[in-house]
Amino acid sequence: MQYRFKHKGKIPSLTDGLLESYTHTPTGMEHIDYAELPSRSEMINVINGLMSLLFPGYFGPKRPDRENLPFFTGARLDQIYEILAVQIFMGLRHRCRGDLSSCGNCETLAEDITCAFLKELPKIRQILATDVEAAWRGDPAAKSFDEIIYCYPGLFAISLYRMANYLHKAGSLILPRFMTEHAHSKTGCDIHPGATIGDEFFIDHATGVVIGETTIIGKNVRIYQGVTLGSLRFPKDKDGNLLRDQKRHPTLEDDVIVYAGATILGADTTIGKGAVIGGNTWITKSVEPGAKIILKQ
Amino acid sequence: MQYRFKHKGKIPSLTDGLLESYTHTPTGMEHIDYAELPSRSEMINVINGLMSLLFPGYFGPKRPDRENLPFFTGARLDQIYEILAVQIFMGLRHRCRGDLSSCGNCETLAEDITCAFLKELPKIRQILATDVEAAWRGDPAAKSFDEIIYCYPGLFAISLYRMANYLHKAGSLILPRFMTEHAHSKTGCDIHPGATIGDEFFIDHATGVVIGETTIIGKNVRIYQGVTLGSLRFPKDKDGNLLRDQKRHPTLEDDVIVYAGATILGADTTIGKGAVIGGNTWITKSVEPGAKIILKQ
Amino acid sequence: MQYRFKHKGKIPSLTDGLLESYTHTPTGMEHIDYAELPSRSEMINVINGLMSLLFPGYFGPKRPDRENLPFFTGARLDQIYEILAVQIFMGLRHRCRGDLSSCGNCETLAEDITCAFLKELPKIRQILATDVEAAWRGDPAAKSFDEIIYCYPGLFAISLYRMANYLHKAGSLILPRFMTEHAHSKTGCDIHPGATIGDEFFIDHATGVVIGETTIIGKNVRIYQGVTLGSLRFPKDKDGNLLRDQKRHPTLEDDVIVYAGATILGADTTIGKGAVIGGNTWITKSVEPGAKIILKQ
Repeated sequence: MQYRFKHKGKIPSLTDGLLESYTHTPTGMEHIDYAELPSRSEMINVINGLMSLLFPGYFGPKRPDRENLPFFTGARLDQIYEILAVQIFMGLRHRCRGDLSSCGNCETLAEDITCAFLKELPKIRQILATDVEAAWRGDPAAKSFDEIIYCYPGLFAISLYRMANYLHKAGSLILPRFMTEHAHSKTGCDIHPGATIGDEFFIDHATGVVIGETTIIGKNVRIYQGVTLGSLRFPKDKDGNLLRDQKRHPTLEDDVIVYAGATILGADTTIGKGAVIGGNTWITKSVEPGAKIILKQ
Repeated sequence: MQYRFKHKGKIPSLTDGLLESYTHTPTGMEHIDYAELPSRSEMINVINGLMSLLFPGYFGPKRPDRENLPFFTGARLDQIYEILAVQIFMGLRHRCRGDLSSCGNCETLAEDITCAFLKELPKIRQILATDVEAAWRGDPAAKSFDEIIYCYPGLFAISLYRMANYLHKAGSLILPRFMTEHAHSKTGCDIHPGATIGDEFFIDHATGVVIGETTIIGKNVRIYQGVTLGSLRFPKDKDGNLLRDQKRHPTLEDDVIVYAGATILGADTTIGKGAVIGGNTWITKSVEPGAKIILKQ
Repeated sequence: MQYRFKHKGKIPSLTDGLLESYTHTPTGMEHIDYAELPSRSEMINVINGLMSLLFPGYFGPKRPDRENLPFFTGARLDQIYEILAVQIFMGLRHRCRGDLSSCGNCETLAEDITCAFLKELPKIRQILATDVEAAWRGDPAAKSFDEIIYCYPGLFAISLYRMANYLHKAGSLILPRFMTEHAHSKTGCDIHPGATIGDEFFIDHATGVVIGETTIIGKNVRIYQGVTLGSLRFPKDKDGNLLRDQKRHPTLEDDVIVYAGATILGADTTIGKGAVIGGNTWITKSVEPGAKIILKQ
C-alpha cells in the first residue's frame, strides 16, 4: 500500500521542538558532545563470547573439539580482549573527564583491568562448577548437568554476576551494571555486581529475584524465584542526601534456604547458618542459625 | 552431517490437516484475508528510534554532538513519522473494517495522531526528567543519572508507558498495548497503557510489577519489584458479560511507597497520601494517609 | 579512535590458562569432542515458525490470504520439518551416545517424533482456542481476541508449553525444556514441559509464575502473576540422592482461581474444585472444594 502523507511539512517544527527541549531540560537527560558511552551491541557480543569461553560447546556458534580448541580459544580471547578493553575504557573515560580527550590513565587502566579479568576466567570457572553442582543437588527436575548449563536461567544470571563482580571490584564503571542488567532482562533475576556471594549458589527459576548491592551470602545457599534481599531504610547525611556506600542489605550465612517470594531486608538482618525461610515471609530482623520461619496461615 | 529424511512424503497430508483446522476452529484463531496487523519488527524499530529521541546519546546507534544534532533529530523524526503513521493506521483499520479496503478516516486519523504524538515528545521528556530525578533520590545504589538512564529497567518501562499512554488517549488501537508489552518482555514490568500516573514516579528493580488499566497514581510515588495494583472483582452486566470499562484498580495518592511483593486490589481501595505499604501484604481496603501497614510476622 | 593495545602479547598465556582449565575442571563444565547440542538460533526459528502455523496472520512475517494459505502452510511445514527433525535428533543423540557416531535409532526416532508432533498441531490449536476464550472471559482489560493472541504473554507461554509438553511425552530430550525456557525468558512465566494442564487455562500478566514438573491442573483454571506451584520437600533414596521422578508438585482441580503471588507447595496438596486462593498466601495443605483462602491482614 502506498500511504499518502499529508502533514510531513510539520517535521521541521517538530524537530525544532525537540532541539529546544534538548537545550532546556535538566542536565543529564541527553548525552551530547560528551564521550561516547559503551556500546550495548558490542557489550552483548562480549557477553556471548565470554559465555562460550566459560562453557565451551554449550554457548557460542561452533562446537569445539580437542584439535581446534586451542585456536578457538585463542581467537575468541583475542577478539574479546580488543572489544572489552575499549568498552571498559569508554566506561572509565565517561566518568573521568566526560569529554573526548583522554586523561591517558583511563586507557592504561582499562587494558590492565581487561588482562587481569581474562586471567581470572579459569578461577571463575572453578566457582561456577560449584554452582552447577549445587543446582544438580538442589533441583530434582534437573535431568543432567548439561541441561543446567544449557537451559537454566539462574546459572546464566550467576555467571554474569560473577564476571561483573570481578570487573566491579577491579574498578570498571557502568559496564558491570550493564552486564547484570542484561542478565536481569533475559532471566528476571537482578543481582547487583557489588553483592558478595559464596560458592555453591543456586537460584531456582530465578524470575523476580533481587539481590542488593551490599548483600553478603555465604556458601551453599539456595534461593527461589521472587526472593528479595533488600534495604529497609536509607541512611542520609545531615543535609538529607542519601549515603551511597553504606551496608544496607542483609547477610545470609552458609547453608541457608529461602523459599519463593520471601522478602528479607536490612543491613543488620542476619539469617543464621542453616536457617530456612519460608515463602512469602517479610523478614526485617535477624534469624537464629537453624531456625525455620514460616508465614502464619 | 547429511540427514536422510524418510517421511517427507507426509508433508502434503500434514498441510491438509492444518488447512482444515484453519477452516474449522472458532473465529479468531487465525487472521486470514483480513487487513494486516501492525508489524512487530517495525514497531520495535519505532520504539528504539523514539528512545533515541527522548534520551539522545543514551539510546540509538550514534553519539550525537551539537553540530550534527539538528540533522540527526530531523532525520530520525522523518523516519519514525512514516513508519509510525502506517503502523497506527494498521491498528485502526484492523478494528474499523477488518479488511483491506479503507474507510478513509483511518488514514487521516492515523496521521493526525502521529503528528500530535511527536509534538508531545518534549513534554514527555519533561515528565521523564522528574522520573529520573525520583530514581536518583530513591535509590542509594544509583551512582549517577547516566546509570539510571542507561541501565535501569524501571525507567525504560515508564518511558514506554508514558508514550503508550498518550497514544492510547489519542485513540490509537493495539499499538499502545504492544509497546507496553514490549517493555514487559524486556523488564518484567507490566504497566497498562490506560493507567494514570503522576510525575516523579520510580519503580526499582521492576520485575513482576503489574499496574492495571484503571489504576490512578499521584505524584512522587515509589514502588518496588513484584507489586501488583490490580482488580478484586469484575463487574458484569445482567447477562453475565464482563463490563470492560469500569474502574477496577486502586488509587495511590501522592508520596506513597509500596514495598516488594505487596498486592493492592480493588476500585474502591485508596492508599492515602504518604502511606507506606510493607512488602508481601495483601490490601483490599483503603489505607489512611500517613499510615504504615506491615505484614504480621 | 585508534586504541593502542600494549599487552596483547599476553594472549597466548591467557589461552593456556583457559585450556588447562578445560582439562582439569570437573566433568560437565565444557562440551568438547561430544556430539553437538541443538542450536539455539535454529530452535528459535522453529519456535517462530510454529507460532505462525498455530496462529497464521498473528505471528510470522507475512499476512496470509485464502489463496496463498496452502502454499504458505506447506512451505512453512517443509522448512520446520527438516530443522526440527535434526534438532530433535541432536537432543536424542547427545544423551544416547554423547559422541559423533550415531546409534541409528536416534535418527529414526527423531523423524517419527517430528511427524507425530506436526500431525498433532491441529489438536493443539483446538486446545489453545479454549485458552484464548478463557482469557477473554477472565480479563476485563482485553479489548478483543486479537489483542490476546497478538500481545498476551500468558498465551505465548501456554502455546510453547503445549507444544513442548507433547514433545516431552513423545520422548524428545533437552528441546522441550529449551522451548519453555525461551518462553520463560520472553514472558517471565516458567512452565515445566512435564506439567499436566487442562483446557481453558488462563495466566494473566504471567511474570514470575512457576509451574513445576509434576503439577496437575484441571479445566478452567485461572492464575495470576507471581504464583508458584512448587515442591515442598525432595524425596531421596537411602544413599541421600534425590529421587527425580516422584510427584512433588500440587494438584489444582477444575475452576480454581489463584491470585497474584500465592505459593502452593507439595505433592499431597490438592486445591479442590472451584476454590479461590488469595494473593500472597503460603499453602502447604489441601484446600476444600469451593473454599476461599485469604491472607490474614
